[in-house]
Amino acid sequence: MMYSYQHLFAFTKAIFKNIGCPEEEAELATEVLLSADLRGIDSHGVARLIGYVRLWESNRINATPRVQITHETPSTAVIDGDSGLGLVVAPKAMDVAIQKAQVAGTGWVSVKNSNHFGIAGYHAMKALPHDMIGIAMTNASPLVAPTNSLERLLGTNPIAVAIPAKEQPAFVADFATTTAANGKLEILQRKNQEAPIGWIQDAQGNNSTNPNELKAGGALIPLGGDTGSHKGYCLGAVVDIFSAVLSGANYGPWVPPFVSFLPLATNLVGDGIGHFFGAMRIDAFRSADEFKLHMDNWITTFRNSKAKSTGSPVLIPGDPERVTSEIRLQEGIPLLEPVVKDLQTLAERFSLRF
Amino acid sequence: MMYSYQHLFAFTKAIFKNIGCPEEEAELATEVLLSADLRGIDSHGVARLIGYVRLWESNRINATPRVQITHETPSTAVIDGDSGLGLVVAPKAMDVAIQKAQVAGTGWVSVKNSNHFGIAGYHAMKALPHDMIGIAMTNASPLVAPTNSLERLLGTNPIAVAIPAKEQPAFVADFATTTAANGKLEILQRKNQEAPIGWIQDAQGNNSTNPNELKAGGALIPLGGDTGSHKGYCLGAVVDIFSAVLSGANYGPWVPPFVSFLPLATNLVGDGIGHFFGAMRIDAFRSADEFKLHMDNWITTFRNSKAKSTGSPVLIPGDPERVTSEIRLQEGIPLLEPVVKDLQTLAERFSLRF
Repeated sequence: MMYSYQHLFAFTKAIFKNIGCPEEEAELATEVLLSADLRGIDSHGVARLIGYVRLWESNRINATPRVQITHETPSTAVIDGDSGLGLVVAPKAMDVAIQKAQVAGTGWVSVKNSNHFGIAGYHAMKALPHDMIGIAMTNASPLVAPTNSLERLLGTNPIAVAIPAKEQPAFVADFATTTAANGKLEILQRKNQEAPIGWIQDAQGNNSTNPNELKAGGALIPLGGDTGSHKGYCLGAVVDIFSAVLSGANYGPWVPPFVSFLPLATNLVGDGIGHFFGAMRIDAFRSADEFKLHMDNWITTFRNSKAKSTGSPVLIPGDPERVTSEIRLQEGIPLLEPVVKDLQTLAERFSLRF
Repeated sequence: MMYSYQHLFAFTKAIFKNIGCPEEEAELATEVLLSADLRGIDSHGVARLIGYVRLWESNRINATPRVQITHETPSTAVIDGDSGLGLVVAPKAMDVAIQKAQVAGTGWVSVKNSNHFGIAGYHAMKALPHDMIGIAMTNASPLVAPTNSLERLLGTNPIAVAIPAKEQPAFVADFATTTAANGKLEILQRKNQEAPIGWIQDAQGNNSTNPNELKAGGALIPLGGDTGSHKGYCLGAVVDIFSAVLSGANYGPWVPPFVSFLPLATNLVGDGIGHFFGAMRIDAFRSADEFKLHMDNWITTFRNSKAKSTGSPVLIPGDPERVTSEIRLQEGIPLLEPVVKDLQTLAERFSLRF
């Protein structure tokens, strides 16, 4: 079932307004959420709208947060999200990073007391029009076992880095620090298909190909899988520490779950979930024009390198998402039946039409 | 064969002095180089001393560089290493990052015109005594094929992040952005053993277990291997761009080789190889004491989590290297026969004793 971006935008914005978000923030949250659907990261888009509403219903999201800086230096800030939607808190924090970079060359913002912020790539890309490099990361509900461990202590903790070029489209890396993002696992679960070795371990720590293992005490495996998961563990740990230990949010096993039916951990070690943002002004290092010309050269060199097979060209990070975004803006966004049902449930709940 | 740290230190310093390094810089280069041997990263320590000397003999290393800042803002700098030893240029650049952080909260330094800098972890760890988080990365000779590519366009491009704690030893992640570091491959080559799937591809782009494939047109595979190498490719690319496109060093396939017998690429796009350093003052975010107490909690939570098997406890990044370092300072550093022979060759070359 295909829905136009405009249709989903109007509906999603209406939902956010109905839970009490002010006009501008409802619009902002909608833009951030739907950037996932446009870019083809279906697990993080409108499919999660009902999840945000349920968190609001269980009083875990504040629809009218007072987002404020609690500590700062010329190049840093800590922001308290006041339990707001991450979809609203994160772009505001990224704006602060960009403002800091305008004056100090770079800006770095660690955020506490927030909620899930959609796709990391959206926030990193906010730096691009300013001729800055953007960085965004977040911790998330614990689903990942560190190397050698049976316990789920880390989230899929994504990292995004957006780098501007001149004639070429920007370089936009956005990836979970696990071998497979949770969204990919959900797709296998729905289709009843097996997962490759290296994605999942069962409750005893053995490799498993069963995507439902997570519901039975299993865990996702850090990026690197069988022979290099200690590196993905390092990366996920760095994201957790930058996002939460620096800001005063919850870290490790204490990160609040996205789903409202799971209880919060006891003896919380901080406030809400944490994010970390960076903005680096290119001309704090060298002329932006010179840099972007070299980025064009970097990009074309890699893109034009000899591919293993003609059907699978060498891609630049961000290529597939950009192409999907262009297509979906034209042709609409495909939604799976369970997602449509959720949106219809929401429509009823707030006496709206979907 | 075991050699004391003191013995190797005196010899290595003498070699650096003999190629013309001033006293202090010979000492600094030695400390950086031997930190690899102490920490058990044998591929990057004295085993490479003869490599540095050969680069100097072929006029690719300047023993008396004028390392200088060519551009700066309150939180950033670009440094020209003047073709110096990376072992000297890198700690000086990291010092600049730390000084910037003292004033602006964070400091970020991109370096051009340098050479290989030893282990990334050494440089990141320089931030720790200042209650700062340290970050270090470098690009390197192209050995790695991006996902889908047959061409070697990236180095093993390591990233190190060092984070201070209070009672617990610091968190020190230091890893190549490939599934396996080149050093691990060299060990398999020497022992004539097979590599696991996911480390290497052959000249046609097929998975290979032959560690010698790199000499026949093959390539290392980015971190993530079979199912997630696009993520390692993203990481390696970010390291390359931060280190070299930001600074004006060579990037991608143009990065100069470490071995003097390989020619430089033609039409170089920059100067030497590039590094990138960061220092973030903890109290630019929150009280350093509060942060370090939470780091202790983070570290003990992870270290004490339930392990898959009793023989393999859950480790904190930096644990194995710290233990090795303590042992080797006491018991000496084991060197393989070919390394000892290289050092004897160097001793003869400069009329020294090894």
